[in-house]
Amino acid sequence: MKPSIPKGTRDFLPQQVNRRNYIFETIRSVFVKYGYQAIETPVMENLSTLTGKYGEEGDRLLFKVLNNGDFLKKANEEALQERNSTGLIPSISKRGLRYDLTVPFARYVVMYQNDLSFPFKRYQIQPVWRADRPQKGRYQEFYQCDVDVVGSDSLSYEAELVQIYDEVFGKLNIKTVTRINNRKILAGIAEVAGIPDQMIDMTVAIDKLDKVGIEGVRKELGERGIGEAAVAKIEEILAIKELADLKAALAASETGLLGVEEITQVFAYLEGYEFKNTLQFDITLARGLNYYTGCIFEVNVDTQAHPNIKMGSIGGGGRYADLTSVFGMKNMPGVGVSFGAERVYDVLEELDLFPAEDASALKVLLVGFDEESHRYAFRCLNQLRAANINADLYPEPVKLKKQMKYANDRNVPYVILIGDNEMASGELSIKNMENGEQEKLSIEKIIDTLK
Amino acid sequence: MKPSIPKGTRDFLPQQVNRRNYIFETIRSVFVKYGYQAIETPVMENLSTLTGKYGEEGDRLLFKVLNNGDFLKKANEEALQERNSTGLIPSISKRGLRYDLTVPFARYVVMYQNDLSFPFKRYQIQPVWRADRPQKGRYQEFYQCDVDVVGSDSLSYEAELVQIYDEVFGKLNIKTVTRINNRKILAGIAEVAGIPDQMIDMTVAIDKLDKVGIEGVRKELGERGIGEAAVAKIEEILAIKELADLKAALAASETGLLGVEEITQVFAYLEGYEFKNTLQFDITLARGLNYYTGCIFEVNVDTQAHPNIKMGSIGGGGRYADLTSVFGMKNMPGVGVSFGAERVYDVLEELDLFPAEDASALKVLLVGFDEESHRYAFRCLNQLRAANINADLYPEPVKLKKQMKYANDRNVPYVILIGDNEMASGELSIKNMENGEQEKLSIEKIIDTLK
Repeated sequence: MKPSIPKGTRDFLPQQVNRRNYIFETIRSVFVKYGYQAIETPVMENLSTLTGKYGEEGDRLLFKVLNNGDFLKKANEEALQERNSTGLIPSISKRGLRYDLTVPFARYVVMYQNDLSFPFKRYQIQPVWRADRPQKGRYQEFYQCDVDVVGSDSLSYEAELVQIYDEVFGKLNIKTVTRINNRKILAGIAEVAGIPDQMIDMTVAIDKLDKVGIEGVRKELGERGIGEAAVAKIEEILAIKELADLKAALAASETGLLGVEEITQVFAYLEGYEFKNTLQFDITLARGLNYYTGCIFEVNVDTQAHPNIKMGSIGGGGRYADLTSVFGMKNMPGVGVSFGAERVYDVLEELDLFPAEDASALKVLLVGFDEESHRYAFRCLNQLRAANINADLYPEPVKLKKQMKYANDRNVPYVILIGDNEMASGELSIKNMENGEQEKLSIEKIIDTLK
Repeated sequence: MKPSIPKGTRDFLPQQVNRRNYIFETIRSVFVKYGYQAIETPVMENLSTLTGKYGEEGDRLLFKVLNNGDFLKKANEEALQERNSTGLIPSISKRGLRYDLTVPFARYVVMYQNDLSFPFKRYQIQPVWRADRPQKGRYQEFYQCDVDVVGSDSLSYEAELVQIYDEVFGKLNIKTVTRINNRKILAGIAEVAGIPDQMIDMTVAIDKLDKVGIEGVRKELGERGIGEAAVAKIEEILAIKELADLKAALAASETGLLGVEEITQVFAYLEGYEFKNTLQFDITLARGLNYYTGCIFEVNVDTQAHPNIKMGSIGGGGRYADLTSVFGMKNMPGVGVSFGAERVYDVLEELDLFPAEDASALKVLLVGFDEESHRYAFRCLNQLRAANINADLYPEPVKLKKQMKYANDRNVPYVILIGDNEMASGELSIKNMENGEQEKLSIEKIIDTLK
C-alpha cells in the first residue's frame, strides 16, 4: 500500500515548519506587544454553531464529522429513503470542522462573557478547513491568523491595527501598502448619488475597479440598474483623493460625513507614528463582506518595491457593529484584521527573505573515529548541550565519509572530529563546514566560539 | 440559541493558552538542543492510512469525516439497505481525524524517505482525536508530544532520550522517576521460566504489579495458564535488583542476556551525566504495547518529592524494530518517547509551578483623564511599544474607576496615569499595582524601569 494524504492537505518538512513558525512568531510577538491575548478553540465545533453562518455555499463546504457508533440508528428515515444527502446530514453528523476563526470567536465571547474583561483583545492562530476544490495556493486545511478587539467603539483600535500591520510587515521585511476606507463613506456616496438602497450593488461594482478599470465599473453599475446620473455622480466622487474634498462632496449625507470623520480621527491617532510601510486612504476599497460597518483595511505587497510579486491581498479586515447577536448577545461591536499567513509564506520565499539563521537548527555535529572516541564524543556532546548549544553526535563510529555526508545533509555549520590524538590532547578538531577551515580547540574554547 | 462546544473538547482562555505554551516551549527547546526537528502532518488523514492500525477498538474510536457533496450517491447500497453503519462507512467517508502521531509519522517517513537524512530525528507536537467517552482528564481532542529517531539501532539514542526526560522535567521543576527496562529481558524471563510462547500473558500480568502486588501477579499468572514452577521462577527473577545478578539468572537465554547488555550500555553512555531526577532499572516495567522490542521507559512523578500528587505516568516510550513495514517500507527501526502534556499541565497546576512572570502578559496600561490626555497617552503608548514593552491604553477617557477596574481585570503590574499636570511637566504618574506606590517619571525613565 502506497501511502498518501488527502488532496488539499499538506505535510510539512522541518524547514517548512520552522519557516511557518518564524511567520507566526513574528506576528504573535507584535500582537502581544499591543496587548492582545491568545485564545484557542476546538477543531471540532457543533454543526449547530457553524451551519447557516457562511451562506449556502459555506454550508456545503463545511467538513462534517460522522457521529460515532451505530449512526444509522438515528438517521432520518425519510432522507435515507429519498437518498437525500443534505437532508440526512443533521441526523448522522452533529460536529463539523472549524471553517474560520470568527464564528468560534463569537461563540467564545458569548460563552465566556463573564470571565473576560472588555474591551477584550484576542488573537488566534489556528488551522481551519474548507472543502473547496484544491488548487495552487488553495488548501482544504490552512491557517488563519486573526486579531480582534471587541466591546469598544474607540477608533484608537483602528489606529493600532494599522500599526500592527505596519510593524509585522516591517519585521518581515516585506514592503506593503495598507489601504483604508470606511463603509459609511460608501453608504454616503450611494446616498449622495440618490441610490441609498443600491449601496451593495454599487460596492460590488466598485470593488472591481482594480481589475476592470473605471470603464468596467461604469458598465457594471449600469447593468446593476443604477441610472446614468447616479453613475456620473459616483464616478465624480471616486476621483476624489483628499479627505477635505470628500467632506464637501458628501455634505448632504450624515452617514458619509461620519465616515470621513472616522478616517480623519484614525489618521489623527497615527500622527507622529513612524511608518515603515505605506498607508493610503482609498475611496475605492470596498471589501466584499457586508458584515463591516466602519473602517475597512486591506494590505497588498508594494509592487513598486517588489515588482516581481504577483499576489492578492495579504491582509484585511475592518470594523463591525455586531459580532455575537447570532448567538443571542447584543451590542458587541469590534474591529479586527487578519494576516494571510500562507500567502506571506509564498512572498517571503519568492523574495528570499527567510532568515538564514535559524535558532532551532543544529549547530554542531560530533564525529568519532572508533568505539572509544565515540564514547568520548558522547561526553563532549553532554557538555555542549549543557551550554545550550544545539548539538548532535553521529550514532555510530562508521566511516568518516558517511558521517560527513550526514553532516552535510543536516546542513550543520560545524563538525567536531574526535580520534586518538584529540582524546590524548583534549584539543578537539573543529571544522567550519562553510569554508572548510579546521582548527584544534579545547571543548571549553569550542563552547565559547559556538555561543 | 445558547452556544456550546462538543463534549470532550475544550476552549482555552488566554492564561491556559500561555501555560500550555510554556509546557510545549520547554519541551520543544530541549528537543531542539538534542538535534530533533519539527514536522507537521495534516489533521485529516485518509481513512485507509488510519484504519486497522489501532485494533478494532481503535477503528471504532476514529472520527470519520463525511465525504462532501452528494455522498449517498456512492453509498454502499447493501449496507444502506441493511442499516449497517460500520459497513456503510468506507463508501461515505474517506477521511478521518488523526488518532495519534505515530501512524502519521510512519506514513511520513515512507512518503519522504528520499528527502530525509537518516537517522531522522523528529518531534511532533500536535492534537489528536479519539471518540472515547469523555471523563475527568480524558478528552476527545488533546495534544500529543512525541520525539523519535528512526533509522538507527544505536543505544546512544536511548541514553539521550533518558536525558531529554531528565532535562525537560528538570526545567519544569517536577521531580520524576524514570524507569527503564527492556523487552528482551522480559522475553528472557519467559524463556528461562520455560514459557517462551506465553511472554505476552506474563507481561500483562507483571504490568499490574504496582496495582495488585506480587500476590495479585501470581494469581493472574496462574489464571493465564502459567504453571506453578514457571510462576516461582518468574517471581524469583522479578525480585532481582542488580543487572549483574540478572545476567546470571538469564544466562540460559541469549535474548535475555542481550537485553541486559543493552541496558548496561545505556547506563554506560549515561556515566558522568548529572541527573536532576531519578533513573531506575525496573525489571517489572512492561508497557502494554507489543510493538516495543528493546528498551522501554516510563516516567512518573516522584511521590517522595511530591507526596500529594496522584497521577499516572507522565511519559513513556521505547524502542521498536519496525515503524513502517505496514506502509511497505522494511528495516526502519527506531526509538521514541512521548510526554503526557495534558497531565503535566495538571501536575504543574497542582504544585503551583507555573512561572509567575509571563513574557506575553501586559506590562503596563495607560490611562487618560480627558480627550486631550488620552491622545497624549496614545503617543506615549507608541514609545513604550517601540521599546518592546507590552503596553496598552484604555480606549476612552472614561471615569478613572472604570479604567482602573480594567487594569485590575487584566492583572497589569503598572498603570501610567496622564492628566493636565503630567502633560505640562512631561513627568507621568506611574503606579505599581502590587504595592500601590506611585511616582512621577519621564517616559524615558519609565521605559528604563520597565525594561
